[in-house]
Amino acid sequence: MSNRVCELLDIEHPILQGGMTWVSDASLAAAVSNGGGLGIIGAGAMPADLLRQEIAAARKLTSRPFGVNLIMINPEFEQQMEVVLAEAPPVVTLGAVKSTAVIPGMKARGIKVLPVVAAVAIARRAEQQGADAIIAEGSESGGHIGETTTMVLTPLVARSVSIPVIAAGGIADGAGVVAAFALGAEGVQLGTRFVVAEECTVHPDVKEKFLKAGDRATAVTARCIGYPVRAIKNRLAGVYDEWERKYLAGQCSAMDVENLGLGKLREAMRDGDTKEGSMMAGQSVALVEKAQPAAAIIAELVSEAESLAAELPSRLSLRR
Amino acid sequence: MSNRVCELLDIEHPILQGGMTWVSDASLAAAVSNGGGLGIIGAGAMPADLLRQEIAAARKLTSRPFGVNLIMINPEFEQQMEVVLAEAPPVVTLGAVKSTAVIPGMKARGIKVLPVVAAVAIARRAEQQGADAIIAEGSESGGHIGETTTMVLTPLVARSVSIPVIAAGGIADGAGVVAAFALGAEGVQLGTRFVVAEECTVHPDVKEKFLKAGDRATAVTARCIGYPVRAIKNRLAGVYDEWERKYLAGQCSAMDVENLGLGKLREAMRDGDTKEGSMMAGQSVALVEKAQPAAAIIAELVSEAESLAAELPSRLSLRR
Repeated sequence: MSNRVCELLDIEHPILQGGMTWVSDASLAAAVSNGGGLGIIGAGAMPADLLRQEIAAARKLTSRPFGVNLIMINPEFEQQMEVVLAEAPPVVTLGAVKSTAVIPGMKARGIKVLPVVAAVAIARRAEQQGADAIIAEGSESGGHIGETTTMVLTPLVARSVSIPVIAAGGIADGAGVVAAFALGAEGVQLGTRFVVAEECTVHPDVKEKFLKAGDRATAVTARCIGYPVRAIKNRLAGVYDEWERKYLAGQCSAMDVENLGLGKLREAMRDGDTKEGSMMAGQSVALVEKAQPAAAIIAELVSEAESLAAELPSRLSLRR
Repeated sequence: MSNRVCELLDIEHPILQGGMTWVSDASLAAAVSNGGGLGIIGAGAMPADLLRQEIAAARKLTSRPFGVNLIMINPEFEQQMEVVLAEAPPVVTLGAVKSTAVIPGMKARGIKVLPVVAAVAIARRAEQQGADAIIAEGSESGGHIGETTTMVLTPLVARSVSIPVIAAGGIADGAGVVAAFALGAEGVQLGTRFVVAEECTVHPDVKEKFLKAGDRATAVTARCIGYPVRAIKNRLAGVYDEWERKYLAGQCSAMDVENLGLGKLREAMRDGDTKEGSMMAGQSVALVEKAQPAAAIIAELVSEAESLAAELPSRLSLRR
């Protein structure tokens, strides 16, 4: 039985590496693509010129398809879109989808477009506008999140669209892959686990925090202003707490709270400030136990999942 | 292959009906047990005498094992525990586990004790105190919740204890059952889906709300005071918003926020006040589509899950 996500994206395994700002550059993306998955450059707030360079770098590092993740609420979005339309990377994943009207233009350039969604309604609209697949992202994910978890969002989206659904959020091992497929997904996207990949260029201190994190490691900040963000708890979470209280008491603006995050992701991920920077991570960080090359992560996910699926009919003993 | 949860609890299928205050009385619990699962009386804030009557009623309605759910932070807990030690229902599930010291006393009476936990550390402690199994409850659940979702909590708890793990949160169909087993569970607990069971005595207007709910139907209130509760959004959620703001601005106490919920669950579930009452429900309410007898729900869960597991090895196509 062939896999629709593999066919659509022209990849060996239906495993995507989530686009992560200041984390997934051409180095990680190319390593994932060379490993048979789909690596994705996290454009985030990248200036358009840098994005062009990263796309060029990825093309040098791999001959396989890769993607670019764009976040629509980003101030650089318009200029980034110009680069994307000019360079036409094989795939674009689209976060913070304000409007699905940008999809047809990219499709006309031959780009496969995969919106990242946290709710059913937007998945339906995206399909109508020609999206090639939907990345359904559960609230256990890292970074900017929605409210519905992978266990519930995946089957709901899978019931609502006919294009393939790729599950994201809470997946870090073969068991998560099998669970996602049971829930109706035809592919998976992992961010957090790839942060500790050897080819990932984040600061080593950040990788160490990821490897040591337990089940209570992450917290969600800025929920009160409508832009919840999940990251590993540190002093920054305390600063958010304080300002969120001020905001709710009418003593500061939503923008004041939002601005607390300015530069913080870079400070953590690139400069290694694990105390006051923003280490965006999913809850699955508690499942991440070892650093490996990206290709080894993909090979392990595939072999674990295949073994587990093969034994599941007997393991699933639902009768006495 | 035999199932450890079935053997432990002496039931046909490893499917538990979550204890739900003002919802799961002897009527629902007995119907679930008669259907081959484990029905559970939600003791909640029940006076001890009423709990004794409910246990007696369940014994009349079913000859099969059933359980009682006790919530340790409840003011009636001590008196309820006396009833439980006297009546010795086959199973007790224990919510809001403040201390695991109550476990040995119940075990000495032959009661199987299953703590409901939202974190790894308490699961480990409960196992050391003799718990028979762990119910790992993800944050997509209804009512009082933790922060870690089923996708992440289930495998973490399963790795941390050697007694069986029963997954709860976000499960409402056969796909959810298969996903839970893939993640390491050996049983499942469902609350929300059983609210619409024909034998469930909640107000019909509440059942209708459950059947119509979509993916954005629930909201979490009272997170700021450390007791997050998930329920279907209605005017009460707005009232909470307002008082949570006051609390964060130092204009009222945590108790004031907590007291907003007093009597609200009963008003919704028994009296049918769907506008201002508290309709506690999990995110899986969006997956609940039809009212059925409890036994039919269980039979459907088993057959759906078995079919899906049988086809999963071929459906899980991870190679091109």
